[in-house]
Amino acid sequence: MAQGITYTNHVGDILDKVLAGIDYNKAFIIADENTARLVVPRLKSTVLAGVPIITIPAGEESKNLETLTYVWTQLSDLGATRNSIVVNVGGGMVTDLGGFAAATFKRGIRFINCPTSLLGAVDASVGGKTGIDFNGLKNEIGAFSMPLHTIVSSCFLDTLPMTEIKAGYAEMLKHALLHSHDLFCQLLKTDFSTSFNTDAFLKTMEQSVAIKLQYVDSDPFETGTRRALNLGHTVAHAFESLALKRGKPIQHGFAVAWGMVAETYLSHKLFGFSSQDLYALAQFVLDNYGAFHITCDDYEALIAFMTHDKKSRDGEINCVLLSQCGAPQFDAAISTDHMKEALDIYRDLMHI
Amino acid sequence: MAQGITYTNHVGDILDKVLAGIDYNKAFIIADENTARLVVPRLKSTVLAGVPIITIPAGEESKNLETLTYVWTQLSDLGATRNSIVVNVGGGMVTDLGGFAAATFKRGIRFINCPTSLLGAVDASVGGKTGIDFNGLKNEIGAFSMPLHTIVSSCFLDTLPMTEIKAGYAEMLKHALLHSHDLFCQLLKTDFSTSFNTDAFLKTMEQSVAIKLQYVDSDPFETGTRRALNLGHTVAHAFESLALKRGKPIQHGFAVAWGMVAETYLSHKLFGFSSQDLYALAQFVLDNYGAFHITCDDYEALIAFMTHDKKSRDGEINCVLLSQCGAPQFDAAISTDHMKEALDIYRDLMHI
Repeated sequence: MAQGITYTNHVGDILDKVLAGIDYNKAFIIADENTARLVVPRLKSTVLAGVPIITIPAGEESKNLETLTYVWTQLSDLGATRNSIVVNVGGGMVTDLGGFAAATFKRGIRFINCPTSLLGAVDASVGGKTGIDFNGLKNEIGAFSMPLHTIVSSCFLDTLPMTEIKAGYAEMLKHALLHSHDLFCQLLKTDFSTSFNTDAFLKTMEQSVAIKLQYVDSDPFETGTRRALNLGHTVAHAFESLALKRGKPIQHGFAVAWGMVAETYLSHKLFGFSSQDLYALAQFVLDNYGAFHITCDDYEALIAFMTHDKKSRDGEINCVLLSQCGAPQFDAAISTDHMKEALDIYRDLMHI
Repeated sequence: MAQGITYTNHVGDILDKVLAGIDYNKAFIIADENTARLVVPRLKSTVLAGVPIITIPAGEESKNLETLTYVWTQLSDLGATRNSIVVNVGGGMVTDLGGFAAATFKRGIRFINCPTSLLGAVDASVGGKTGIDFNGLKNEIGAFSMPLHTIVSSCFLDTLPMTEIKAGYAEMLKHALLHSHDLFCQLLKTDFSTSFNTDAFLKTMEQSVAIKLQYVDSDPFETGTRRALNLGHTVAHAFESLALKRGKPIQHGFAVAWGMVAETYLSHKLFGFSSQDLYALAQFVLDNYGAFHITCDDYEALIAFMTHDKKSRDGEINCVLLSQCGAPQFDAAISTDHMKEALDIYRDLMHI
């Protein structure tokens, strides 16, 4: 399951080097409308000049079967073979969908990820999870398929609105919670009014990805310890599904930030996680992410989504919780009453 | 990549034993209209009684995205989780599509194959190739995903028309050609008017599957020696694609029989394969399979399909050929002229 990964702000040079080192017949770029326009010209890859770009609509709502079918058809019509290679240039939506298209085209061709969003760089593009949303459910269809190489950089972050930076930063907070109290406290000090397009921030990103890869390498198919990376995600996915149902999708990273508030409350309640850390996290989230609005009338739907979650076994709600920073607790089965309590506290802490 | 496999005519007992030995929450049967009606009731599995049956249309033409979408939706709506298991009951179309649906549902759930056709039993259901036809091309979309267990039996073969038996038998002939001259000669002696629903024939099937698994185990992702199993398939897939285009699909097994005639001619021409064996094979195929009708006006389309084939590299036509029975020759790049000559000889031998 080894995958290459390079942290650099000289993306084109590294792309050329990686492509020069492998045997392939044709390359294809998959990008969304924004990254095709704003990022692909800035890659400055000599090898990729003139390569066909398969451009898909931007936005999480396009991570669906229709877009996937379009990509499959394009690869087929453009004559991609098993010896071809796909280069995904975009955020998590592009690397998830493009990775899944590659993983299933002619039973699997190689792909390289060039994440352009912070969320993509520190989470979606590494670890081999690919897929699409389906039947109203997030990532309902997909595969584990490792990219041949991922190129992580901070140099495209200036193409993004600040909300996108914040979305990715939530996953970095999650990695910090899984790693150490020191790193968690350090990340809470960030100032979103400064620039993120720096070599210093690339170092912070590298540290964050390294935490993720430690979990991935120990358990690539997520049957054990890798599930720690689902911290915050049981509630986050339910929030996202509810938002989809309302016809107003929310960003995954924001959902994770809000989900972590609910789940660190459960961590406090069930495993003695520090209430001080819970309050610090909640304040940071409220200040920087605002709140996802729910009322108690939404609880039933949210709990239905949670029992439908991939992490659910036998219709139970499962969360990964923490006894303290760096100490995940697996397979906590959450009663409906405890989850409702956590949603109550979430609303309190978010001033809803 | 290890997969369990059992050769038995007590299918229900083995199914119950396999299912009793694993941890899962819900099981789902995927079957086609015919196997749901004719085979599922005969499984006599205690464990599977009352399990939901996801019934799909029969026939290769249903191995498509629409049917796959239906299966995904059913699994999702019926509450399948990552801890659920799928039992595919049917021919190669069901195990290919059902296996791919399982391989991609929530990034992969386990599946068991109960092949009911001879082709399914000796080929499609073992080895981990799953997928659907797409964009007019066979198995254009798919994945390598090993079944948890495959139960090979001869006891459902009496539900099949003789053409289905012959279709599967073509792959057994291929395995024999890849194995030894003795086995090849033995298989040419078969009489299709006798019953195949016997324990003796189950032994012959076991021998055939063992040859296939030897190649699969040595190279699960088909980057090297496993490609031997593509003997006959470059021409076969082109015939199938042409037939699809004509709106009159042909059976894969028949296509393989015809494809082997063309490709053993190339084996003779390029690697000195015995002309006596070529003639013996051609006579057996003509007697039992008839012929797929082509004229020289079809050559261009056929060659275009061959260069579009998954086995093709850089637009060349690639075939696996034989220098003699049991001695595959890999990566033979076939010139357009040689392929046209092979199609001419095929037409001669098939009296077209």
